[in-house]
Amino acid sequence: MRDDREAAGGAPGVPSFHSMWRELLGVGRHPGSGGYRRFAWGGADAECREWFRAQAKARGLAYELDRNGNQWAWHGDPAAGDAVVTGSHLDSVPDGGAFDGPLGVLSAFAAFDELRARGAAFTRPFGVVNFADEEGARFGLACVGSRLTAGTLTPEAAYALRDADGTTLPQAMEAAGYDPSTLGPDPERLARIGAFVELHIEQGRALAETPHPVAVASAIWPHGRWRFDFRGEANHAGTTRLEDRRDPMLTYANTVLAARKKARLAGALATFGKVAVEPNGVNAVPSLVSGWLDSRAPDEETLAGVVAEIERAAAERGGRDGVEVAVVRESATALVEFDHALRDRLAERLAARPGTPPGGVPVLPTGAGHDAGILSASIPTAMLYVRNPTGVSHSPAESAEEDDCVAGVLALADVLEGLACRPQS
Amino acid sequence: MRDDREAAGGAPGVPSFHSMWRELLGVGRHPGSGGYRRFAWGGADAECREWFRAQAKARGLAYELDRNGNQWAWHGDPAAGDAVVTGSHLDSVPDGGAFDGPLGVLSAFAAFDELRARGAAFTRPFGVVNFADEEGARFGLACVGSRLTAGTLTPEAAYALRDADGTTLPQAMEAAGYDPSTLGPDPERLARIGAFVELHIEQGRALAETPHPVAVASAIWPHGRWRFDFRGEANHAGTTRLEDRRDPMLTYANTVLAARKKARLAGALATFGKVAVEPNGVNAVPSLVSGWLDSRAPDEETLAGVVAEIERAAAERGGRDGVEVAVVRESATALVEFDHALRDRLAERLAARPGTPPGGVPVLPTGAGHDAGILSASIPTAMLYVRNPTGVSHSPAESAEEDDCVAGVLALADVLEGLACRPQS
Repeated sequence: MRDDREAAGGAPGVPSFHSMWRELLGVGRHPGSGGYRRFAWGGADAECREWFRAQAKARGLAYELDRNGNQWAWHGDPAAGDAVVTGSHLDSVPDGGAFDGPLGVLSAFAAFDELRARGAAFTRPFGVVNFADEEGARFGLACVGSRLTAGTLTPEAAYALRDADGTTLPQAMEAAGYDPSTLGPDPERLARIGAFVELHIEQGRALAETPHPVAVASAIWPHGRWRFDFRGEANHAGTTRLEDRRDPMLTYANTVLAARKKARLAGALATFGKVAVEPNGVNAVPSLVSGWLDSRAPDEETLAGVVAEIERAAAERGGRDGVEVAVVRESATALVEFDHALRDRLAERLAARPGTPPGGVPVLPTGAGHDAGILSASIPTAMLYVRNPTGVSHSPAESAEEDDCVAGVLALADVLEGLACRPQS
Repeated sequence: MRDDREAAGGAPGVPSFHSMWRELLGVGRHPGSGGYRRFAWGGADAECREWFRAQAKARGLAYELDRNGNQWAWHGDPAAGDAVVTGSHLDSVPDGGAFDGPLGVLSAFAAFDELRARGAAFTRPFGVVNFADEEGARFGLACVGSRLTAGTLTPEAAYALRDADGTTLPQAMEAAGYDPSTLGPDPERLARIGAFVELHIEQGRALAETPHPVAVASAIWPHGRWRFDFRGEANHAGTTRLEDRRDPMLTYANTVLAARKKARLAGALATFGKVAVEPNGVNAVPSLVSGWLDSRAPDEETLAGVVAEIERAAAERGGRDGVEVAVVRESATALVEFDHALRDRLAERLAARPGTPPGGVPVLPTGAGHDAGILSASIPTAMLYVRNPTGVSHSPAESAEEDDCVAGVLALADVLEGLACRPQS
């Protein structure tokens, strides 16, 4: 979207979406890169959080800060239970785009505005949420706010997180004016939520060549990170005969290409995006090259198979190069299947809307982690994706068409109306 | 060599070599890595330089510090001209070995001791030299002392050199008690030298499987450094379809393997030992991978051909990956051919020694730069190499057999006797 657009009409929620978009557009945007730097508990994050609080207040929603720093805005009393919640996060990766996270929070408020304008009568408590520290850009762990709430991250582990400057997570929270002593699982809160729906920009191009601006999520692929250490022998690049070398850069290079090939053949993803070299000198054959593999696949068996094949290829080439290869799994996340009943209910609701192309809305898996994925182990959870024409994400070039964002707001409103409001007819 | 060896006898120069070796063994050695960290104008370098001065004094040699920080020890008056000089350097690369540099300086003093014990009568002025800052480990430019002397590095360019902490070369010299205002070309000094011989540890395995402990240098291969910038598009590693990526890591990896192959086919060397990645995140397809190519070949045509082929391979693969490839030549050093007459004179002298295997001593090229290579443009220059059983250099694992070091001292003494002394018969 462009920031100079005119407020487009047609539905009451849409103008409020556009005004909110303009309000957040400049917050945490780096003038050099054009990307966003909204890191947990920092200045830009504080501005975003203050903005959330103001949005709640402006709508007469009850603002609530939970024990883990997540922000909530309530219509109706959540203590009544079976609440319907929607939202996402406002923090960003380093030099991220404008959509990843904020699109879900803004669409949540805009959908609420749309429902009120329609005169919808809420039959269940309704909430908008901003989860803290989803991207993990500062402390290296994603979804800290939702993990703490779900109990899959212990307070002790959270207290031990440090940023690149050595600041701990509790120190950062205190500096931002929050109390870190309350961090911990929040099962009572989760027990009151009957459904959580997260709207998110698509991070791929599955919708780009379809007539569909919106899709429903089916699953989050299992994924993990593996560190490959390739150990050779440091030597003088100007004097050591090729046949006398044990050059780990060769083994690394071959493994990068093998990973791509194995992933392609298996219908999976495999990426070496990070590398560290010792001594990393222009005239030195390296002693050590460490490369990090990120791999994801539709199911756990495929993922395990792809990684095993990459390991085999690395070991085989290492044998020829005189290079030792050691592989450490640094993290692993199991398959997330979103609640089938909720998913089907959303897909049916969207398929029944006027103007939906025949065949219903696409139901898509993704390789990316989300707060919705964390919560899905505890409560019925679903996601909506808004079409991304380039597929680019985690980048200043991340984009979505204005019409598609509007379609996302209206789809979310329809879905929420079906879940939380008395049928109008 | 081991540091606990017994002083081996047989020739008078050998015991002094061993005692000098023991004196320097602990200077600047890092207890963790076992490698040497003797960086220009730092504390360990100062200890080495003080040691050089003491060695000159102990032998009654006239100590001289030249305008560029190089140290000289003279027997006879260099002003008489046509002097014979030998030596090398005492500084090291980061975590370098014990031999690269010091072996040449220690062997120079030991050979002088050997000649005096033989009762040799010097007919030409004789000098031992320690060139300043040969490795360039601190300021990033190799052979600073000899380049300044030869006039191939201007004082202005030297003044602009900075180390990783931002300290300039003149600041570092001043902090070490030297006057940087005198830096500059020294043609009068070079004009007084009739021959320079540098003994050095071999940095390869050309002698390892021969019966020869010592070789004579023929040439220094032309060599250079090229930076390859592979530009793609940053993207989410978990969501971007393989076919939608522009991943520069793939192009880099393919270029690393192509460089090895092209070099092997051409009888050249090619190494990617340094790499930098943006954003270098585990879950991010990189936007930029920069890799530095170090390449060397027996002649300039071969070198240019190999680099052109690597560039072609990179561009071809980049086209398939959607990655732009830009190549910048960061440095280039032309072929150095050592003085043929001096080289042949050394080779004949060594071939005539009792015990030399038939066929004479090997005459070898090298891919490594040396002060001797810098000086060879101004004065007749030669080099001797002492066998390196593993070929490892610029590493704590650099090694030479004790017997081979002794053979090096005696070969250097014989060569110097032939050049600088009255024939004994």
